[in-house]
Amino acid sequence: MSFLLYDVFKNDVLWQNLPKLAEHVDKETVDAILQECSKIAEQQIAPLSRQGDEIGVSFDNGKVTTAPGYKEAFNTYAAGGWSALGGDVDYGGMGMPKVVTAFHEEMLCSSDISFSLYPCLSAGAGLTLAKHGSEELKQRYLTRMYTGEWAASMCLTEAHAGTDLGIIRTKAIPQGDGSYTITGSKMFITAGEHDLTDNIIHLVLAKLPDAPAGPRGISLFLVPKIKIDDEEALGKTNHVTCGSIEHKMGIHASATCVMNFDESQGFLVGELNKGLACMFTMMNFERIGVGIQGIGAAVKSYQNALEYAKDRLQGRSATGIKSPQKSADSIMVHGDVRRMLLNMKSMNEGSRALSTYIAMQLDLATYGEGEPQIKGETLAALMTPLAKAFFTDVGFENTVTGQQIFGGHGYVREWGQEQLVRDTRISQIYEGTNGVQAMDLLARKVAGSKGAMMQVFIDEVSTYIDETSSENMQEFILPLKQSIADLYELTQEILIKSSVNPNELGSAANDYLHVFGYTAMAFVWAKMVEVSLEKQQSGDSFYLSKIQTARYYFARMLPRTQSLILAIKAGSQSLFDIEDELF
Amino acid sequence: MSFLLYDVFKNDVLWQNLPKLAEHVDKETVDAILQECSKIAEQQIAPLSRQGDEIGVSFDNGKVTTAPGYKEAFNTYAAGGWSALGGDVDYGGMGMPKVVTAFHEEMLCSSDISFSLYPCLSAGAGLTLAKHGSEELKQRYLTRMYTGEWAASMCLTEAHAGTDLGIIRTKAIPQGDGSYTITGSKMFITAGEHDLTDNIIHLVLAKLPDAPAGPRGISLFLVPKIKIDDEEALGKTNHVTCGSIEHKMGIHASATCVMNFDESQGFLVGELNKGLACMFTMMNFERIGVGIQGIGAAVKSYQNALEYAKDRLQGRSATGIKSPQKSADSIMVHGDVRRMLLNMKSMNEGSRALSTYIAMQLDLATYGEGEPQIKGETLAALMTPLAKAFFTDVGFENTVTGQQIFGGHGYVREWGQEQLVRDTRISQIYEGTNGVQAMDLLARKVAGSKGAMMQVFIDEVSTYIDETSSENMQEFILPLKQSIADLYELTQEILIKSSVNPNELGSAANDYLHVFGYTAMAFVWAKMVEVSLEKQQSGDSFYLSKIQTARYYFARMLPRTQSLILAIKAGSQSLFDIEDELF
Repeated sequence: MSFLLYDVFKNDVLWQNLPKLAEHVDKETVDAILQECSKIAEQQIAPLSRQGDEIGVSFDNGKVTTAPGYKEAFNTYAAGGWSALGGDVDYGGMGMPKVVTAFHEEMLCSSDISFSLYPCLSAGAGLTLAKHGSEELKQRYLTRMYTGEWAASMCLTEAHAGTDLGIIRTKAIPQGDGSYTITGSKMFITAGEHDLTDNIIHLVLAKLPDAPAGPRGISLFLVPKIKIDDEEALGKTNHVTCGSIEHKMGIHASATCVMNFDESQGFLVGELNKGLACMFTMMNFERIGVGIQGIGAAVKSYQNALEYAKDRLQGRSATGIKSPQKSADSIMVHGDVRRMLLNMKSMNEGSRALSTYIAMQLDLATYGEGEPQIKGETLAALMTPLAKAFFTDVGFENTVTGQQIFGGHGYVREWGQEQLVRDTRISQIYEGTNGVQAMDLLARKVAGSKGAMMQVFIDEVSTYIDETSSENMQEFILPLKQSIADLYELTQEILIKSSVNPNELGSAANDYLHVFGYTAMAFVWAKMVEVSLEKQQSGDSFYLSKIQTARYYFARMLPRTQSLILAIKAGSQSLFDIEDELF
Repeated sequence: MSFLLYDVFKNDVLWQNLPKLAEHVDKETVDAILQECSKIAEQQIAPLSRQGDEIGVSFDNGKVTTAPGYKEAFNTYAAGGWSALGGDVDYGGMGMPKVVTAFHEEMLCSSDISFSLYPCLSAGAGLTLAKHGSEELKQRYLTRMYTGEWAASMCLTEAHAGTDLGIIRTKAIPQGDGSYTITGSKMFITAGEHDLTDNIIHLVLAKLPDAPAGPRGISLFLVPKIKIDDEEALGKTNHVTCGSIEHKMGIHASATCVMNFDESQGFLVGELNKGLACMFTMMNFERIGVGIQGIGAAVKSYQNALEYAKDRLQGRSATGIKSPQKSADSIMVHGDVRRMLLNMKSMNEGSRALSTYIAMQLDLATYGEGEPQIKGETLAALMTPLAKAFFTDVGFENTVTGQQIFGGHGYVREWGQEQLVRDTRISQIYEGTNGVQAMDLLARKVAGSKGAMMQVFIDEVSTYIDETSSENMQEFILPLKQSIADLYELTQEILIKSSVNPNELGSAANDYLHVFGYTAMAFVWAKMVEVSLEKQQSGDSFYLSKIQTARYYFARMLPRTQSLILAIKAGSQSLFDIEDELF
């Protein structure tokens, strides 16, 4: 993490150059935070994971009880001030940049995805409130979310409306006193109800009776579980009830709730009918967070698999016995085991680097000024769907690979590898399925800007290529150059074809997102290698490992783009010629 | 299935030409069998699946109780004579060819993988006994396995010896009366203990005290759970006990047992020290069966996903509203949903066709004579690891895709899509991990024969290409020709490189198996299209669907070989340069 923060991406320099961060963010502070974070993750949270999976969250007549140890760990977490980590300093937040909170999230997710969802939901809601809430709402609610005294949830989905929020039915009726009554039922609400905090602040999408149809008629409301009285104490119930919880493939310790609002008192956040835009603040934050879930789980799966592969003796090396004193060699001698481990290693490290790069763009967008701010905003918008979908696809693939290395032991529960697969699988689905992310990228961002947003990325990489002329970098720069040329050409072809036939976008979207992902990952791998080549003289084998892993990435992973490009270029015809009845 | 059996692969003609089958196998009989099979699968077995997953198998002090309804269903299954379906006619078997038993297995697996394992293990053990057992063992045990009165298991794995069976420790001591005492502990034994039958016949790998080290010292023994007395009745216990069962990611209703043998009486099957070769009869049978598990589950997942996609209303078509009277269009309008469904459809139908082709080779090998017999044997040996690994990789990918189409509803338990993912995942691991299959294919079969075995397949396809000159087939024949040329060239390159560096095999094996799989699937898709083009005049849209699905396969799936080939050609260096400590 230090390697990425300082050596590769020079965040320490960046922080000094951003007036909104320079005062309270520096290397020393951040290092101390990450050290402390690794302690709480390792000592308090990771031990909860297995039991949380076995026992899970329970539901009894509206009451939700979290898994053993969750309440104590959440209290410790809150007491450590972690709920305020990325929060607005004017309301008690620590104001840490996204590159720092992203690593914090990764550590939580490596430890226990189920647990991580409770604080992550609160952090995302806090961000939305900080940006769009009134001064009164912020003083009243945000401050107590930052202390960890209260938690939060986001209530979007309804039974008939998931991706398509324009057709939600939850109603908001103005009461004339500035408040609204909210009535409706929401489903798949993560952390909708639980026993970790005395109050839960729900951010709820609803429609006024006279609102325009579709997404332009959606407003956002803050609805507390318990009303706050004039003395700022918890008052009466607000008629917010949990109807049931879901039984799921994984994240058993995360409460996924049906939430019923029955004339509950709500307060408008942001402007009327502009709720979806406000909610996107939270959704974009959560989308990157969900992407990081994939990385966190895959990192843990790799660490487990590597340890197992070194210990497990089975068969002999193809080039002659390696451990003659033992009954068999360790499975590290087998090419296919090394392939699996290096797939994981190269993609995990590449994902973490790319995630850091994207988090930096968010920091520039939030704290920067002028040209860099605009560029950061563009790249962050372009790469948010990439972060969500690509990191979770990679994360899922890698947890499956990490399970495979264990053989039969990966399928039984005791080693934990299968839990990582089950827990990670949801990350490809919630916060907008990865198919929806792919359409957000290709249709909304790339085609929506007529290619301009993607050109910002292509220009960024092209400039880097032009500036990197040293001889020993050419083995990486040349394939990167080819990849960027491929991406450019592919983008142009899709733009032209989709202007005639809009179905070209949906048919290409998923594969296009992956071409973009592998190419962007090649870019950050080149940057990591560049630094490692410089530092290799130090004799620290960390850098040699980076260089060799990069070689593996360019040799064995980056070629994946070629099949994807061929599939995209084959076009939409074979998808749409066949009639629905012939499926 | 009829389309494949008769239209595409002309099995009715084949059966008439094989003297060992001609008498008792014909279209009428087979159709009746498959009809009956679909009934029992749908009515008796499929309803067990969900409850079997929820309740699972239970263990109490050595006693294993199967899930509710299992015993009744197994009794019905046995009473219907299904345990004898592929059995030797001389001992009460029905002697059906593999193409028929393969479809039978697929229907069982679509219904409930856990249930299917009990009869499939018995069938595989029956095959081994029929081929290698003495007349006495066959009369005494095999006949009662065919009636379904008794079940069977295969006991290979030990805690320290999975893939590497050469290092097993279970001991066999000759008793002088022709029997042996078997002592040792086996793990991951599917159907090792249960309450479905009064007796369980274990096929156990063990070593004599003076046996040669490694795989050449392994012998195979038949060890009944309960001894048979002189009147052929169940007698005394044979000291075969179940120590525990595993808690697993899926197939919860399948008993995965630790089996302890404590001076249990055993009888040699086949010759001393040639047990592994005998066991391979069973393992090869099971490997194709496991491949079919992947297909069965993926077919079910597709059927569910298609129904859901047609019903689920969300968003609008990119080319204009399709259902103006409804609040949204069905998600069938979205390119990415069609992509997911067609991935599944084209790969499922391709897998089933390829599986039928491989089963035919097994039938030729078993029942044929002369040249076709030898060719069938070669192709069956070459393609057994392909069937196991490729169909299960495809099956897992497709169950994950079928889950994805459901969005959040795919992750909750009630729809069953997540169970299919969990149940299918094991198929990539047991019966030899897919990595082991890939090495069996590339190192043992392809390189072991210096390419000769693969050349038999390449020649077969090349002949087909040369013979298929009609104009309307060229859109399929040309890419098939290119694929076969690619496969030939790739094989040659690997043979040359691996003769210098054996690590090239392990580094290439997994990707090579997939190149072979997609190419072989293109071959059977071409064969299916050829028939469909002829029959399309009939006006039956079934054939149009086949043609359009084939177009999708060639346009969007077959290009996957290109990235795999590039990765393989990059060689083993980047896998082996990096030292173990730098992982």
